[in-house]
Amino acid sequence: MRAEIITIGDELLIGQVVDTNSAWMAEKLNEHGIELYQITSVHDDREHIINALNEAFGRADLVLTTGGLGPTKDDITKHVLCEYFGSHLIEDERVRAHIYELYKERPDVLNRLTATQWLVPECAQILENRVGSAPLMVFHKGDKILASMPGVPYEMKIAMEEQILPYILELKIKNEKLKIIHKTLQVTGIPESSLAILLEEYENTKPEYLHLAYLPKDGIIRLRLSSYGEALEEEMQEWFDHLKGLVSDYLIADTDEPLEVIVGNLLKARGATIATAESCTGGKLAALLNKHAGSSAFYWGSVISYDNSVKEHLLGVPQEMIQAHGVVSEEVVRVMAESVRKQIGTDYAIATSGIAGPTGGSKEKPVGTVWMAWATPEGTTAECFHLGKLREQITDRACTKALVGMIKRLEVRG
Amino acid sequence: MRAEIITIGDELLIGQVVDTNSAWMAEKLNEHGIELYQITSVHDDREHIINALNEAFGRADLVLTTGGLGPTKDDITKHVLCEYFGSHLIEDERVRAHIYELYKERPDVLNRLTATQWLVPECAQILENRVGSAPLMVFHKGDKILASMPGVPYEMKIAMEEQILPYILELKIKNEKLKIIHKTLQVTGIPESSLAILLEEYENTKPEYLHLAYLPKDGIIRLRLSSYGEALEEEMQEWFDHLKGLVSDYLIADTDEPLEVIVGNLLKARGATIATAESCTGGKLAALLNKHAGSSAFYWGSVISYDNSVKEHLLGVPQEMIQAHGVVSEEVVRVMAESVRKQIGTDYAIATSGIAGPTGGSKEKPVGTVWMAWATPEGTTAECFHLGKLREQITDRACTKALVGMIKRLEVRG
Repeated sequence: MRAEIITIGDELLIGQVVDTNSAWMAEKLNEHGIELYQITSVHDDREHIINALNEAFGRADLVLTTGGLGPTKDDITKHVLCEYFGSHLIEDERVRAHIYELYKERPDVLNRLTATQWLVPECAQILENRVGSAPLMVFHKGDKILASMPGVPYEMKIAMEEQILPYILELKIKNEKLKIIHKTLQVTGIPESSLAILLEEYENTKPEYLHLAYLPKDGIIRLRLSSYGEALEEEMQEWFDHLKGLVSDYLIADTDEPLEVIVGNLLKARGATIATAESCTGGKLAALLNKHAGSSAFYWGSVISYDNSVKEHLLGVPQEMIQAHGVVSEEVVRVMAESVRKQIGTDYAIATSGIAGPTGGSKEKPVGTVWMAWATPEGTTAECFHLGKLREQITDRACTKALVGMIKRLEVRG
Repeated sequence: MRAEIITIGDELLIGQVVDTNSAWMAEKLNEHGIELYQITSVHDDREHIINALNEAFGRADLVLTTGGLGPTKDDITKHVLCEYFGSHLIEDERVRAHIYELYKERPDVLNRLTATQWLVPECAQILENRVGSAPLMVFHKGDKILASMPGVPYEMKIAMEEQILPYILELKIKNEKLKIIHKTLQVTGIPESSLAILLEEYENTKPEYLHLAYLPKDGIIRLRLSSYGEALEEEMQEWFDHLKGLVSDYLIADTDEPLEVIVGNLLKARGATIATAESCTGGKLAALLNKHAGSSAFYWGSVISYDNSVKEHLLGVPQEMIQAHGVVSEEVVRVMAESVRKQIGTDYAIATSGIAGPTGGSKEKPVGTVWMAWATPEGTTAECFHLGKLREQITDRACTKALVGMIKRLEVRG
């Protein structure tokens, strides 16, 4: 089964909104053996939407659209789909009841524009949007299917997981044997081109149906092995293990899990806890560590010491030390890490201090210089990195380095 | 001038990478009066890329591609473009010299795969990629242009700003008078449908060339007025001012600037500083406040007190208070805000404590309950919110509420 996504909304094409929906949907589709062929973003424009629908149906069996389902005039997706499938709008009693229930404590929302939300194309199969007022619509066109969802990410996610995916899978997947398997290694400390040379023989000898991709980001290269086909799991696992052996010197992880999840799992397995003391990363590392549910089991807290006075008063970094060595120095990050570990009372702590730019750099310590320390039950170690020139790049890479450093120290211990 | 973006890479279509490039590029194009018609994401596949090129050239004058320019086997964009434009690869001496300079301190990168990077299609105009090894390529097809850039976001951004955009603008824009203007208001405290009813007369009487869009997110609705046409700036400004008057009761900002930038500017204008004490937002609010360059002028630091022990020991929240009122309570966030304001020595402080889920909710305080306090020179105030059911949604909305609350308090004072 081959799918395409059409995301509908001017906001995507003027850069006001980043399309995060498509990647999430792509991953879900792949998990269920549905290949995503193309993603197309189009304007809230009748002709544009119709052209995109025609093109997508020419290539795919399943078309998923997001966006354009609000009650306001700029949202036209429902009307265009109604026309495209030659139908007309009718009132849907179940949708009306659902909307009354949804807004029972907010009568101000139950106005005449909201009332247009329970008008649906007669030919559409209506699925329940548990968390919003826009009904989910499924259309059939011969053997092909179109499903239309809201563009608000959390509404789309609940729609896909609870309604659209089960509906599609029931209808179509039973008869297919296509399996899509992706397996990913994460490596660091080797240039992409050198890694490719190291893997040249592997690439030349692996079976055709296996595809190897290199995804560099923030100092990590994700090596993804993909197979599209029937029941090749065992053979694929062998080739994946072989690959893992070849890159063992650079290996950080043998899954595509985010680094902060790997750190969290290692900590949980040891019943250990962590804190951070952040200057240049400014809370980004803390936010990563508690991003996922269950983080309170291992993440306890942080001191974000953006200003030097905070380093002095809350983390006890001596003023003379800052004067002697500068705030971006081994001495300072060591004190920061040890102090936050002691004060918050965790087993581990990470400290960062660097120059995120665009100003503040010097010849000796240019923008991008970041000192980092890891305080562990075995002692404290520090490293200096040069992480580029752009603020966001520097702080993202610093978080990656901090997590990679933590994984290494936890695994040595483990 | 009409443009399309083609993003190339299997990683986009299996959901391993979110396409953040397109939104950034779209914004830049619009700023320079170039309309972006469509964004298409395709696989690293010869036929797929060629089809997408044909379709895009059928609709647009300018095609921008990102991705597929690495030195590894999975990256094929350069070869496909070379074939598409009927050319062949030749060595480019300037690219070779640049790559030697780029990696002069990393001889391990100068291997035979990296050497393939200075092979370029003979028919292409080569522009310098200052920060990477993949050359930027511009191709001409009659009056139409294609520009190819790397997919790594920071390389793409520097390429666009320093090379591709100036090149395109010089060639094409001189003769055109099309102006694209977007103006945005940010409002809160009114349902989208009620806002649309409030603006019904406005929508019915405004000129045809003005387009009004509603973009709800995290409790804020961005109202965007757009015009595509010749020199309508003054008239548009009048309609924008009219719109602003109509929504004045709900207005947060009359620009599309992120809320954290508005807070930063208000603080800087007053020479004031801010700190945060975060529980459920876990550093996200701190990271937002120092996301942009220049934040050290107003943002000093934070205590992230994810665990109750941190609330007690670093923020001085009495244990008995937590026992009596619970950690998600008005009493606790007030102490958190006042304590962090005093300890870090700032003029303002924000504190958050809530239940981000998925566990930890109760009948009285379900998942999504968030207490928030703002400590200001005028005193401390607190509010309770119910922000939904999903972890990411709750913490994102909490940051929005925290910033909106801060803007209101700063503007009252200002």
